[in-house]
Amino acid sequence: MAESAEIDTGLVDDDPGYRAAVIDLLGVISYGEISAFDRLAEDAKLAPTMQDKVALATMAAGELGKVAPLHQRISELGGDPYEAMAPFNKAIDEFHRHTAPSDWLEGLVKAFVGDGLADDFYREIAAFLDPTTRDLVVSSLDEDGGHAVFVVDRVRTEIAAHPTVGGRLALWGRRLMGEALTQAQRVAADRDSLTALLTGGVDRPGLDLAALGRMFTRLTERHAARMSELGLDS
Amino acid sequence: MAESAEIDTGLVDDDPGYRAAVIDLLGVISYGEISAFDRLAEDAKLAPTMQDKVALATMAAGELGKVAPLHQRISELGGDPYEAMAPFNKAIDEFHRHTAPSDWLEGLVKAFVGDGLADDFYREIAAFLDPTTRDLVVSSLDEDGGHAVFVVDRVRTEIAAHPTVGGRLALWGRRLMGEALTQAQRVAADRDSLTALLTGGVDRPGLDLAALGRMFTRLTERHAARMSELGLDS
Repeated sequence: MAESAEIDTGLVDDDPGYRAAVIDLLGVISYGEISAFDRLAEDAKLAPTMQDKVALATMAAGELGKVAPLHQRISELGGDPYEAMAPFNKAIDEFHRHTAPSDWLEGLVKAFVGDGLADDFYREIAAFLDPTTRDLVVSSLDEDGGHAVFVVDRVRTEIAAHPTVGGRLALWGRRLMGEALTQAQRVAADRDSLTALLTGGVDRPGLDLAALGRMFTRLTERHAARMSELGLDS
Repeated sequence: MAESAEIDTGLVDDDPGYRAAVIDLLGVISYGEISAFDRLAEDAKLAPTMQDKVALATMAAGELGKVAPLHQRISELGGDPYEAMAPFNKAIDEFHRHTAPSDWLEGLVKAFVGDGLADDFYREIAAFLDPTTRDLVVSSLDEDGGHAVFVVDRVRTEIAAHPTVGGRLALWGRRLMGEALTQAQRVAADRDSLTALLTGGVDRPGLDLAALGRMFTRLTERHAARMSELGLDS
């Protein structure tokens, strides 16, 4: 009892709806990391050099390393990590099925743009969380830009050498954004508790429609900034 | 200059042959870890449950995490990590090509028996290294038995439920050992500097044939112990 008393459950004890929402959120983030691991480990096979392969494999390992603390927090909140992830398997699997890269460069752009988009979204949501959960979510984001530098360098070099590649990858970036929105919308429609994190509850401030619109604008702008960093139109 | 003076290069400055051998050794170990990552990430797809999949993916990420310090030491010794790995790509790739698991259980046994064998061998070699390199090599071994417990549990459960599985997996374990010896022999024949780590040099004590024989016996005995831990004849 002394031990469990040390675990900070935040607002969770007072608000079962909030608790369910946080478990949902940690579930979707951790399944996203597991899927990112799978996809990056798979895409690493397309790498043209051993150096590139190790760089992508290192990104994959990094994603997986974030899963254990998220699962631990789900357990602390009284949830089961695998049950918490299950409702999101379909949407995330579909996202990856519809955006399987056809070559190494598409894989790199997906790693950069897709993970960036997910991270931006979780960072927006983090603002509505209790401090303990917020810190955990923020620490699971790719704050270190190490692998980003690697991706930007590779994609820009390739576009410089073969300018037509830029047009193809720009379309690819738009498809990634479209597919991410489609699946996010499906999740939002299915999981009321998760949506309520953003729209608020009786004791919790949330976003009205105008604020949700502004959040969406911010996400789009950051997506455009990332595409432009790669040398691509968005 | 002040910075490079702090790097402990061990015996390396006095003995170019030893330096080349250590770079070889770190090269083969790091390529082994990268290949283990690939193979475990691939085998994770065969997992019957999401829990099993995450357990194997975590092992994969763990292998990859060991690569960076090994590469750093190769660079400190004046070598190029990717050039150092290149001579061993063929033997390690061949090992994996000849021991591709046909199902989840064979993948588990390979992870346990194959990595155990490699770790035992590197631990034997470590005794002949300067302290800095020895510590690095030993720290790259799977000292935590966490994933071993997971594998032993899964394999034993399966054999209890389907006794005929035991015979098939026992053969599989023998094939893994045989293939590992074949490839190790090829490496030993190709890389004199690496062999000289064990057999010694002018200023370094080494093993005579009888001692090499005893080392081989120890490796075989530990392999048998691991098989028996899984509930398998060796």
